Amino acid sequence: MALISPSRRLRRTPFSDGVEAAGVGGYTVYNHMLLPTFFESPEADYRHLKMHVQVWDVACERQVELRGPDAARLMQRLTPRDLRAMLPGQCLYIPIVDETGGMLNDPVAVKISDERYWISIADSDLLLWVKGIANAHGYQVLVDEPDISPLAIQGPKSDDLAARVFGENIRLLRFFRFGIFSFEGHDVIVARSGYSKQGGFEIYVEGSELGMPLWNALFAAGEDLNVRAGCPNASERIEGGLLSYGNDMTRENTPHECGLGKFCDTQTAIGCIGRDALLRVAKDGPIQQVRPIRIEGRVAPCDRAWPIMAKGQNIGQITSAAWSPDFDCTVAIGMVRMTHWDPGTTLQIDTPEGTIQGVVQETFWI
Amino acid sequence: MALISPSRRLRRTPFSDGVEAAGVGGYTVYNHMLLPTFFESPEADYRHLKMHVQVWDVACERQVELRGPDAARLMQRLTPRDLRAMLPGQCLYIPIVDETGGMLNDPVAVKISDERYWISIADSDLLLWVKGIANAHGYQVLVDEPDISPLAIQGPKSDDLAARVFGENIRLLRFFRFGIFSFEGHDVIVARSGYSKQGGFEIYVEGSELGMPLWNALFAAGEDLNVRAGCPNASERIEGGLLSYGNDMTRENTPHECGLGKFCDTQTAIGCIGRDALLRVAKDGPIQQVRPIRIEGRVAPCDRAWPIMAKGQNIGQITSAAWSPDFDCTVAIGMVRMTHWDPGTTLQIDTPEGTIQGVVQETFWI
Repeated sequence: MALISPSRRLRRTPFSDGVEAAGVGGYTVYNHMLLPTFFESPEADYRHLKMHVQVWDVACERQVELRGPDAARLMQRLTPRDLRAMLPGQCLYIPIVDETGGMLNDPVAVKISDERYWISIADSDLLLWVKGIANAHGYQVLVDEPDISPLAIQGPKSDDLAARVFGENIRLLRFFRFGIFSFEGHDVIVARSGYSKQGGFEIYVEGSELGMPLWNALFAAGEDLNVRAGCPNASERIEGGLLSYGNDMTRENTPHECGLGKFCDTQTAIGCIGRDALLRVAKDGPIQQVRPIRIEGRVAPCDRAWPIMAKGQNIGQITSAAWSPDFDCTVAIGMVRMTHWDPGTTLQIDTPEGTIQGVVQETFWI
Repeated sequence: MALISPSRRLRRTPFSDGVEAAGVGGYTVYNHMLLPTFFESPEADYRHLKMHVQVWDVACERQVELRGPDAARLMQRLTPRDLRAMLPGQCLYIPIVDETGGMLNDPVAVKISDERYWISIADSDLLLWVKGIANAHGYQVLVDEPDISPLAIQGPKSDDLAARVFGENIRLLRFFRFGIFSFEGHDVIVARSGYSKQGGFEIYVEGSELGMPLWNALFAAGEDLNVRAGCPNASERIEGGLLSYGNDMTRENTPHECGLGKFCDTQTAIGCIGRDALLRVAKDGPIQQVRPIRIEGRVAPCDRAWPIMAKGQNIGQITSAAWSPDFDCTVAIGMVRMTHWDPGTTLQIDTPEGTIQGVVQETFWI
């Protein structure tokens, strides 16, 4: 692996000093920001995440804030998910597509109030799309990237750690709901959410100056819980079927291909961009779809899409793959054509190091 | 420095196999794509670039293609530069701003024909902005990212190398003009341009499959010219005053602050987004502006903006800095308030390793 070269353009986060002090080993870049990829090692991090509790610098989950009388109208224009019943305090996973139904991002929408939303984005400059739409339509709404940096608490001991810092009431928070909690006299929004299947919270830290005090408070409070710095772990997230925008889906894919058809209310989400295209897809169904795929043994890092071949025809591609210590195999995510997507189907996969086999699974591993 | 972790999301390029074989040492990420940062070492690369000729994988300069009857109309809506006199075969550096005059990108526009343009972008998903504007206005234009990957030839021997591969006529190409040349039976667009001050060309490689054949042909043809794999070099580009979007300018800045006021024809570029805000800026002038700044000795990498202070007040920031072997100092770019931007002014710069001094220069170094 090569080194990553520092520059202002690869933005540091309010927690970077803590991340460096904790001995970060690798980075990726996400929304023009540094995102750690491992600390001790991917496998040691994975085992720790499943047993204890970790604090994750996920500041790269930037917010697109919509504020003003047309905020709700713009939100519904942006997504095929019907938002009419969305309540303040609620988080919703919303596909965002272009006019052809191609995925532009798969963010979580956070409704603060009827006139204020955050869109907590995956890795594309969704701000430019939202600003472009708002500007051209002349909507009465302010669209900006505020100084809000999520910090995640993930792992089975997350409730214990969070309760020590934010109070016992945080245990009552339901999944994909947020509450307002207090830290050093500041109101902070904390949601029960996160990019792992081990449970936990995401804290929306408003104001960079609050970053390191909160980071330090969590580590001080969790010493006996064996709290460590962590980050999204490829093996764990693939086991759990958490898709990654840019890896497992791109602008080429519809939500239905990504298994997100259930979030597309194309009959009722009137006026959303991409509705015509998605109505067609919803009627016919997708001809390829995301599948969990098991590969025996270890393989090289999946740094590009690996074609899946059958009788000389390309019938899909592997888009993420990582060694799973718990399942003793390589767990993978692929986009597979309907002719080959049934569970149990054996696939021929072309990797740069030769052809390997994979088997379509019924479900993800967790 | 930490490692960069591979994933499909950090896209490889049609030239990545060649880059790896040449022994790339570091990467950055640019438009979700890998961009090499050094091969032998930043200093060795710098010396070689100024003496010989290099081939650069700048595929990360992605194209936003506009095609259709409204292409010209949309282009003029996107930029405050007056495009009425732009001819097919011409390249123009165009600021692109939002409605407040904030820089969204500083690309090069390439006019293929009256109904077809490429916008060769810096590091932001300008595609989403352009698609959003086109979609909301209902313009008759297709907007997409085609499979076009620029490969640059840079350095004083660029004409010699290019002539061997594309023919002697390429020597006649004027700066910021392009011509259509032939490579292995394919028409390729080659412009006299590039992100260095050493001269050279950018080849717009259409079709990924053409990437490695062209890469290999250039190395085969240039062996006796001492051709090497290279990449944009921080020291050389700062010496030459080439700004970097995301480093030296962001959405916070107007074109006038970046010294790009001469590209804003706010009186005649009627209907462009941001015109009202920029008319105001053009009238009053900016209160801060980009300046070349000389710092004695070597400093740590500039991985964040370094505040410039005077009497306890923040009066600017350093946004790029690198050691210059030829000028025996650290060359830097900063945004400085008008009270302190005159040449010869000594500045106090707060870096993570302590306060250092810099002096505003009259001009960039080359």
